[in-house]
Amino acid sequence: MEIERKFLTKEVPFSLNVYPSHQISQCYISLSPTIRLRRQDQDFILTVKGKGLMAKEEFELPLSREEYEKLLEKAETPPVEKRRYLVPLENGLTAEVDIYEGPLLGLTTTEVEFTSMEEAKAFVPPQWFGKDVTMDKAYKNTALALYGIPEEKE
Amino acid sequence: MEIERKFLTKEVPFSLNVYPSHQISQCYISLSPTIRLRRQDQDFILTVKGKGLMAKEEFELPLSREEYEKLLEKAETPPVEKRRYLVPLENGLTAEVDIYEGPLLGLTTTEVEFTSMEEAKAFVPPQWFGKDVTMDKAYKNTALALYGIPEEKE
Repeated sequence: MEIERKFLTKEVPFSLNVYPSHQISQCYISLSPTIRLRRQDQDFILTVKGKGLMAKEEFELPLSREEYEKLLEKAETPPVEKRRYLVPLENGLTAEVDIYEGPLLGLTTTEVEFTSMEEAKAFVPPQWFGKDVTMDKAYKNTALALYGIPEEKE
Repeated sequence: MEIERKFLTKEVPFSLNVYPSHQISQCYISLSPTIRLRRQDQDFILTVKGKGLMAKEEFELPLSREEYEKLLEKAETPPVEKRRYLVPLENGLTAEVDIYEGPLLGLTTTEVEFTSMEEAKAFVPPQWFGKDVTMDKAYKNTALALYGIPEEKE
């Protein structure tokens, strides 16, 4: 079970470069159900997700480069490219700060993964995380891949 | 973790019609890794499998008919059609007797699923099950879908 919250970050008030990071490219073989292909640095991963916004079942399978490239031919969306910085928080949590590139350049989101719904709900985000968009479908990864940066609502 | 043994059955010495059965149609979006689409009666299921012959990790996701039909367009193999009879065995085990149709007409296999490798190894199959083909890649479902009924080895 994957439980996470997602935030729309306007400005990170420190340098991300001191934190570990990964270059990520991902696209979707299917949007419903979610079948995702991800390249993270030199690793290739297939992920299948159940339904839900905050919590969903998830299955991950490592792929060889050949398997990845074959499955890429079945992609339904253009790839989303981003650099993900891993910023440690209190209580063993990690902020995943995603700086998007390409058509999504200018967008930054911050995600935190939790081990229970209670922990997710109790979490008080630092100010710099920005607006909570966990429940906003326009910021789902599949929607970003398909429709680009959402127009902001007031 | 799915742990099962598979047998090449020549003749079932009783009538299967008294047992519950399902009509199954399955094909593969990908052979490596195994991404399977299955229709079982009026249910639609996506299955992703890890590697291995006797034991493998497995993730199943129910699909709507619409999701199933959309994913069918990505199939790499023709569908395999079979009727699966569920024959109860001792110790709460079930023999899944698959009577194939279409291009695989004439083939019958019997599978048993176990909860541990110890149980799988300790299992003594009834005579009618026939030859154990668990470790024979030619009888894997993906190979049957691609290459049809294997030539028998002596």
